Amino acid sequence: MAAARALRGNAAEVTLIDQTNHHLFQPLLYQVATAALSPSDIATATRVLMRGGSNLSVLMAEVTGVDIRARSVLLRDGHRLPYDYLVLATGSASSFFGQDNWREHTLVLKTIEDALAIRARLLEAFERAEQSTDDAEIRRLLTFAIVGGGPTGVELAGTISELARATLARDFSRIDPRDTRVVLCEAGGRLLSGFDPALSTYATEALTSMGVEVRIGTAVEAIDPTGVVLGSERIDTGAVLWCAGTEARPAAEWLGIDGVRNGAVTVRSDCSVPGHPNIFAIGDVASFEAGGDERLPALAPVAKQQGTYVGKLLAARIAGRREPGAFRYRDYGTMAVIGRSRAAAQFGRLRLTGFLAWLVWSLIHLMLLVDFRSRLVVYVNWAWAWFTYGRGARLLTGSTTSDARQPPLSDPESGRPDDK
Amino acid sequence: MAAARALRGNAAEVTLIDQTNHHLFQPLLYQVATAALSPSDIATATRVLMRGGSNLSVLMAEVTGVDIRARSVLLRDGHRLPYDYLVLATGSASSFFGQDNWREHTLVLKTIEDALAIRARLLEAFERAEQSTDDAEIRRLLTFAIVGGGPTGVELAGTISELARATLARDFSRIDPRDTRVVLCEAGGRLLSGFDPALSTYATEALTSMGVEVRIGTAVEAIDPTGVVLGSERIDTGAVLWCAGTEARPAAEWLGIDGVRNGAVTVRSDCSVPGHPNIFAIGDVASFEAGGDERLPALAPVAKQQGTYVGKLLAARIAGRREPGAFRYRDYGTMAVIGRSRAAAQFGRLRLTGFLAWLVWSLIHLMLLVDFRSRLVVYVNWAWAWFTYGRGARLLTGSTTSDARQPPLSDPESGRPDDK
Repeated sequence: MAAARALRGNAAEVTLIDQTNHHLFQPLLYQVATAALSPSDIATATRVLMRGGSNLSVLMAEVTGVDIRARSVLLRDGHRLPYDYLVLATGSASSFFGQDNWREHTLVLKTIEDALAIRARLLEAFERAEQSTDDAEIRRLLTFAIVGGGPTGVELAGTISELARATLARDFSRIDPRDTRVVLCEAGGRLLSGFDPALSTYATEALTSMGVEVRIGTAVEAIDPTGVVLGSERIDTGAVLWCAGTEARPAAEWLGIDGVRNGAVTVRSDCSVPGHPNIFAIGDVASFEAGGDERLPALAPVAKQQGTYVGKLLAARIAGRREPGAFRYRDYGTMAVIGRSRAAAQFGRLRLTGFLAWLVWSLIHLMLLVDFRSRLVVYVNWAWAWFTYGRGARLLTGSTTSDARQPPLSDPESGRPDDK
Repeated sequence: MAAARALRGNAAEVTLIDQTNHHLFQPLLYQVATAALSPSDIATATRVLMRGGSNLSVLMAEVTGVDIRARSVLLRDGHRLPYDYLVLATGSASSFFGQDNWREHTLVLKTIEDALAIRARLLEAFERAEQSTDDAEIRRLLTFAIVGGGPTGVELAGTISELARATLARDFSRIDPRDTRVVLCEAGGRLLSGFDPALSTYATEALTSMGVEVRIGTAVEAIDPTGVVLGSERIDTGAVLWCAGTEARPAAEWLGIDGVRNGAVTVRSDCSVPGHPNIFAIGDVASFEAGGDERLPALAPVAKQQGTYVGKLLAARIAGRREPGAFRYRDYGTMAVIGRSRAAAQFGRLRLTGFLAWLVWSLIHLMLLVDFRSRLVVYVNWAWAWFTYGRGARLLTGSTTSDARQPPLSDPESGRPDDK
């Protein structure tokens, strides 16, 4: 989108192809998963965002490959779309380190559908626990394991703990949602490994004080439909959320080249693919060497800056103007929210924690939302949630109860409703 | 809910059983179906609404029957829930006048899932049309038939026409959404048959001026996956929305009695089921004789007033106080919205049309929303939509593209993307 926008009004004819019809503001997706926001609060129709450029068009379609020789993109429905220049920005998907059977026992957080599936599973766990009489089953249903201690894992762990301990606390007759266990496990040496170590320590302490069990240096050994094995300990769970690994497939396969790391395409200093000066890869799908062994992180600001850069480069090339030099990433800082009034942020040498970090986080994320309506609606929802601890999107929709992967409730004949 | 609330703090132990976890504000559901609002704007967690009464509990479960002798409600999971008093408020479902195969070729509007399915189908039709090169196929995809000229049919017809002609008008490169046909057909003699005839005339004129084709006295003869037959004319359609009939099954079957009309249970003047003084039926599932051959209409205000009445009656009976007399419905008026700044409303002898009716409609519906957060969010969305013609919930989610009932696009090889 950034590349297309940089080409708006230009001589180029630009087609933006996407599988979905919307642009998703990924940093707030965990709030949809935890019932604080609605999908439409953080997603905007791509066609609305691409308005105002008669040279821009949008195609909702699934790409299945690239025919480099014929310079065409292949679409799922059999169509071919010819190109002079191709910009690949296909992002990344969850990766399970070769344990592909873990995929079916876990929930991931990449799309709106993923977020709604997590929301349904969380809310359903409490409803099922309320109906059960088996104490072990209730404990299992109210135990949530989160694998991966990056920003998404930290944000989910904190928010789920708050959901249980504040929002839902008073709403059930038979169970006490404050008994909920949230276990966050990280295989590496600390949470938020991309942040300053002091902020990692802060995140661990803050989460622990909020009732989250933080397990550092703990690898997942096994995952099955009713639990996880962490190190040597088995934990029965109502849901396992997977925030551990990503891979950039399948764009490298489309080009018939070997991806470097997690399927990402190694790119040159102008974001082009080596040997293909008219093909660019940006964002998570690209592996950009930032000097030495360092590679730019898979973060939204990198993707947006690369998009704008490639758009400007193409505009210059088409117009025959001088092209910009090598791409340089400007790091404005990173942030992770931990819970109500708590966050960790770093801007250059400045480190912020606690309420101030949370305030900065809130303001920046409100500003980053692409449209004015979303900003107002999210602001209203946040203000309401802050004062009341309420969550406005506590909706269980879709036919989640028929999820075959969930074992049935314990013996119906001993069920609680009859016991009164 | 009204009955349970009237028993709050009482000696009765009240269990509210519902298949969903939320209360849905049905009158605004058509706005979710047409991308103006999000599900969470008009739905609130039942547990939140039932707070504050220690004698109230909520059970999310599916009822499969009633054992009248044992005084138990039977649940899908095998549990039984014993009762002293039973209040049935199971509402109504769409009915197809015996043409049950029409169900699979049409979309109905009762639940949040229904509304999201309509939204996806509408937005997808425009995306598919944009990709097609076959003019007949484009015309088909952009033709929407709505069967039934009651408030829901009128509201959908007007809003879909506005969606196409205002919101989406500028957002496509190849198709012109203003070519969209919306055909509203009503088998009876006029639209809005429950309203004053002058308002029916107004609705027909207003819809016609908005580009809707209104067919009065036109019965549907056939429906198949790609079109409808209205009278002797076949119309190829991208979607058929069914707003024509409802039936009250299956509560009458649970009781083993014959329902009177559309499966509704005939009730006595205190809303109890004849022969079962401890069982009550209220709302759409009840058929209440209002004098002569007249029966109370299947409207939310009737259901709410009956719920409060039965709650108070049970409170009095349990406490040994004097019970209230026969139920009497107070008709405060009816309204239907037709489009931006247009509505039809009647309050007693007063009839309103146009902007004033729309303003009254907006204010009343904002007030009727159950929580403060929803009111603010809906107000923001409406204000934004009014000034910009935008719709904030233009999201295509779920795997609607795999809908087997939709025929494939025309010959891929002749597809447009390659034609440029």
